[in-house]
Amino acid sequence: MSIYSNPNYGAPGGIHHSHSSSSHHHHHHSPAPPTYAQGYGYQQGPPAGADPQLWQWFSAVDADRSGSITVNELQSALVNGNWSRFDLDTVKMLMNIFDTDRSGTIGFSEFSGLWKYVSDWQNVFRHFDKDRSGSIDGYELSEALRSFGYNLSPSILTLIEQKYASGPAAGYGPPPGITFDRFVRACVAVKTLTESFQRVDTDRDGWVTMNYEDFMKIVLNAP
Amino acid sequence: MSIYSNPNYGAPGGIHHSHSSSSHHHHHHSPAPPTYAQGYGYQQGPPAGADPQLWQWFSAVDADRSGSITVNELQSALVNGNWSRFDLDTVKMLMNIFDTDRSGTIGFSEFSGLWKYVSDWQNVFRHFDKDRSGSIDGYELSEALRSFGYNLSPSILTLIEQKYASGPAAGYGPPPGITFDRFVRACVAVKTLTESFQRVDTDRDGWVTMNYEDFMKIVLNAP
Repeated sequence: MSIYSNPNYGAPGGIHHSHSSSSHHHHHHSPAPPTYAQGYGYQQGPPAGADPQLWQWFSAVDADRSGSITVNELQSALVNGNWSRFDLDTVKMLMNIFDTDRSGTIGFSEFSGLWKYVSDWQNVFRHFDKDRSGSIDGYELSEALRSFGYNLSPSILTLIEQKYASGPAAGYGPPPGITFDRFVRACVAVKTLTESFQRVDTDRDGWVTMNYEDFMKIVLNAP
Repeated sequence: MSIYSNPNYGAPGGIHHSHSSSSHHHHHHSPAPPTYAQGYGYQQGPPAGADPQLWQWFSAVDADRSGSITVNELQSALVNGNWSRFDLDTVKMLMNIFDTDRSGTIGFSEFSGLWKYVSDWQNVFRHFDKDRSGSIDGYELSEALRSFGYNLSPSILTLIEQKYASGPAAGYGPPPGITFDRFVRACVAVKTLTESFQRVDTDRDGWVTMNYEDFMKIVLNAP
């Protein structure tokens, strides 16, 4: 049995799932509504051929009208289903993935990829949030990771649930769930760590030998 | 050469450092001022022999007067030098360390340890924040980790700086520094990961052999 049956899973594009309605894709966890940008105007308008709706979203997120999005602007624009602020580590992860020219900010052409990525993850999140609670519980998390091809032991699943939940699991009442931002970070962390482990595990026996330097590098490169 | 010369370093109590002034220990990164609780009153007062000042801090943090502190109350009470909200992962880490009865909240007797721990880390932070910028830069971080006994390579230090900084390092302008909350989390993560690696590295040659399950467990147990 392989410990990782779908090692190439990454962005949610690879997931097959039913989605009931596409009409409100952009209404949750989304930047301020596009009307926010109306009546203003960039010194330069959208690039030729740009999707007007996407340009409106971009303009709404780019609060200071600089023509590019900073980590703080992105964090202010992204909210979870319970209106909580997006986790900084998730915002930095998104910047690292989509700031392809390493300018430290997200330009309009980079924003297009980021927007699609976040929208796709929103669909994944809604698909696995079976009880429509707005957060992912332990069972929903294990279903999600299993569907992505990760066969993780119960104790690892419990650790992931505890690490990414919005509060401690101990105490009375239902355990706190995982909000959208931390769900995405959890999934990308599992993917990154598993792929890094596999790169070292060249004979695919599920065991690796590594030194302290490589171990720390692998851990620190996960979001 | 050992990769880890001071493996038992943990809480900042083990660090020797000069500290210029003890008069404003509790003024930065601290809960709401104690006056907030004045004029109110708990149904039960402080335990016999309790430090009155500590009880005042505890009452100020315990916003709903329940007699114990939740993760949300603790996050609301802790602020960084730049007034930013404390990182949720750091707050959860503090809860995990000091919620010794696993109730999910921090009672008064647990609060005493938490308060001392945060105060000690504030002194460490101020000691290494040589330029008094309110955040730790890459050089200050490497000085801090070196003083704790970690001999980390330049590339590992860069990864730590990037992971725990409050923004991406690319782009114009000075790289964003590490705020107090994320500095504490970074130091505890390095400690936890190094100690876990050492427990596997029984012959102390700097190399370990481990399987996927143990690897994931070690990583997920770090804050």
